[in-house]
Amino acid sequence: MAKRIAIAGATGAVGTLVRQMLEDRNFPYETITFLASKRSAGSTIEFKGETHTIKLLEPDAFNDIDIVIGSTPDDVAAMFVPWAVERGCIVVDESGYHRMLDHVPLVVPEVNADAIADHKGIIASPNCSTTQMVVAMKPIHDAAKIKRVIVSTYQATSGAGVKGQQDLTDGSRAFLEEKEHDYQAFSHPIAFNVIPQIGSHKADGYTSEELKMVYETRKIFGDDSIQVCPTCVRVPVSNCHSETILLETERPVSPEEARKLFEDAEGITVVDDLDGGIYPMPNNSDDLDDVFVGRIRKDISCENGLTFWCVSDNLRKGAATNAVQIAELLVSDKYSACGTSN
Amino acid sequence: MAKRIAIAGATGAVGTLVRQMLEDRNFPYETITFLASKRSAGSTIEFKGETHTIKLLEPDAFNDIDIVIGSTPDDVAAMFVPWAVERGCIVVDESGYHRMLDHVPLVVPEVNADAIADHKGIIASPNCSTTQMVVAMKPIHDAAKIKRVIVSTYQATSGAGVKGQQDLTDGSRAFLEEKEHDYQAFSHPIAFNVIPQIGSHKADGYTSEELKMVYETRKIFGDDSIQVCPTCVRVPVSNCHSETILLETERPVSPEEARKLFEDAEGITVVDDLDGGIYPMPNNSDDLDDVFVGRIRKDISCENGLTFWCVSDNLRKGAATNAVQIAELLVSDKYSACGTSN
Repeated sequence: MAKRIAIAGATGAVGTLVRQMLEDRNFPYETITFLASKRSAGSTIEFKGETHTIKLLEPDAFNDIDIVIGSTPDDVAAMFVPWAVERGCIVVDESGYHRMLDHVPLVVPEVNADAIADHKGIIASPNCSTTQMVVAMKPIHDAAKIKRVIVSTYQATSGAGVKGQQDLTDGSRAFLEEKEHDYQAFSHPIAFNVIPQIGSHKADGYTSEELKMVYETRKIFGDDSIQVCPTCVRVPVSNCHSETILLETERPVSPEEARKLFEDAEGITVVDDLDGGIYPMPNNSDDLDDVFVGRIRKDISCENGLTFWCVSDNLRKGAATNAVQIAELLVSDKYSACGTSN
Repeated sequence: MAKRIAIAGATGAVGTLVRQMLEDRNFPYETITFLASKRSAGSTIEFKGETHTIKLLEPDAFNDIDIVIGSTPDDVAAMFVPWAVERGCIVVDESGYHRMLDHVPLVVPEVNADAIADHKGIIASPNCSTTQMVVAMKPIHDAAKIKRVIVSTYQATSGAGVKGQQDLTDGSRAFLEEKEHDYQAFSHPIAFNVIPQIGSHKADGYTSEELKMVYETRKIFGDDSIQVCPTCVRVPVSNCHSETILLETERPVSPEEARKLFEDAEGITVVDDLDGGIYPMPNNSDDLDDVFVGRIRKDISCENGLTFWCVSDNLRKGAATNAVQIAELLVSDKYSACGTSN
């Protein structure tokens, strides 16, 4: 059912991708509204061959809207989401602000689409590093119940926004010219370096990014018994997060079984031929919507262990794609009657 | 006791570092000889203010030598080491060629210095990714017996030699200028990318680099019960390997106890203040001899788990430093009578 759609944060890196995806996927809508902060409001953008003026993100902007896709930072989401919900909108929020609230479903369509039905006006999309991991976990969890996850990430600078990508480019150029660069998005040089901290220190030596991977994973699977030990590391890559993932399951899953499960799963593409030097990497996963899995093998340190390598475009499946998929479900026949105002 | 020393592969990246370290550490010698292949033989180098002519690496070059430090690729080691041993030399071999042979001790002085006494003319130095890991494992293993290790690496291009570092620089420059670069040392672009393969496919989906981390670790600790699950990944960093290491021990080791054990251990420097944004990284560990440890914390997925981040200069402790340390032990009073020819 076509709805009145709005995108909040329409001019940011992820908001721009959301616009492109709505266009590419021919998202059905009755009206479409683009919202942004003062800086961008009033400027125009093209969408499906028509010129749209970007409107200011303010309470009354949500008066005639049914579904909002929010691609804003946490503090902006904290401000605008209540305005939208009070006016009867359903908000698909990509920020971290509402994710862990009890009344907010945290949804990755390939994993827990049904949770959408329980929304009270807000549906949250997970953190990028969590999303690709849970998509990869899903078929294995269904087949053999995952008890423990050990994950090390190789995260791209686009996770720190456009400034993060710019820092990598400018910092690399400066380094090669033996010049100084004043980093904007990172507290250490990222050019030709790796930084073992993403987010702030949260608890027990873990960062906020790492604990998102623990608690969001449990919430998405609805299973607090899943144990997760993450280390999140920034690497000098522009876009696409990579992860080494080790899963311990209730019963052994052979690499052959795992490959079959991955191949049959929604949203996963297997890219795995070590002899041929074929596996997912940032440079072959960029600008694609799937979660790519390779290096599938038995964990030789544990009877019930399976390990693999996982790459996905963090701006797409890690943000824009996942939010648009949720919005598509909201306008589908199955969920179109679930809005708080309907 | 001063000996007649030779360096085989004296002009390579690691051989150059070995020369520098022998000079810096005031290594005691009676005579010193620099050996290299045809390409470099005949050229001269400065050592301790004197000019030395590089000699050809050939059988009779070892006639009047006691100790050889070999900084050559595997195939060169396979050729020259027998020449040296037949002539009564003790060879400290940095290549991978002899490491897993039963009669060859594989030595990291901080871990198993005593194994030197058993040599039959060859002492091997481990692979770089193994060396820094076993130095970090040692104090924890002594205190609480390590049963299992899960390690993901972030390995620098210098591990693929000077060509690897050049590929990173030239490839990055080309990428920033939107030009093509023909990679010499890597089968995929390494600039602004990560490659989840180091070495060739060896067995069961693991690469040669990964299986070195399994079997070399067991040999160094003399404990085949240690289970290791490694994933080795190349990152666009010029020098210094980083590793996420998760250890499962026979009894729980608290982060506080681990920190104390690391601080008291030989060859380890703790760099760990997450609140202050302080941890080891390639850009602050370069050109130093120690193994640097940070992000020390409890593995929240397992009762007896401990996890941390470990960085070390792979050309130094991962190669040159370790070999020079072994040579220092060989000329020390304790081991100087162990030579096959003495």
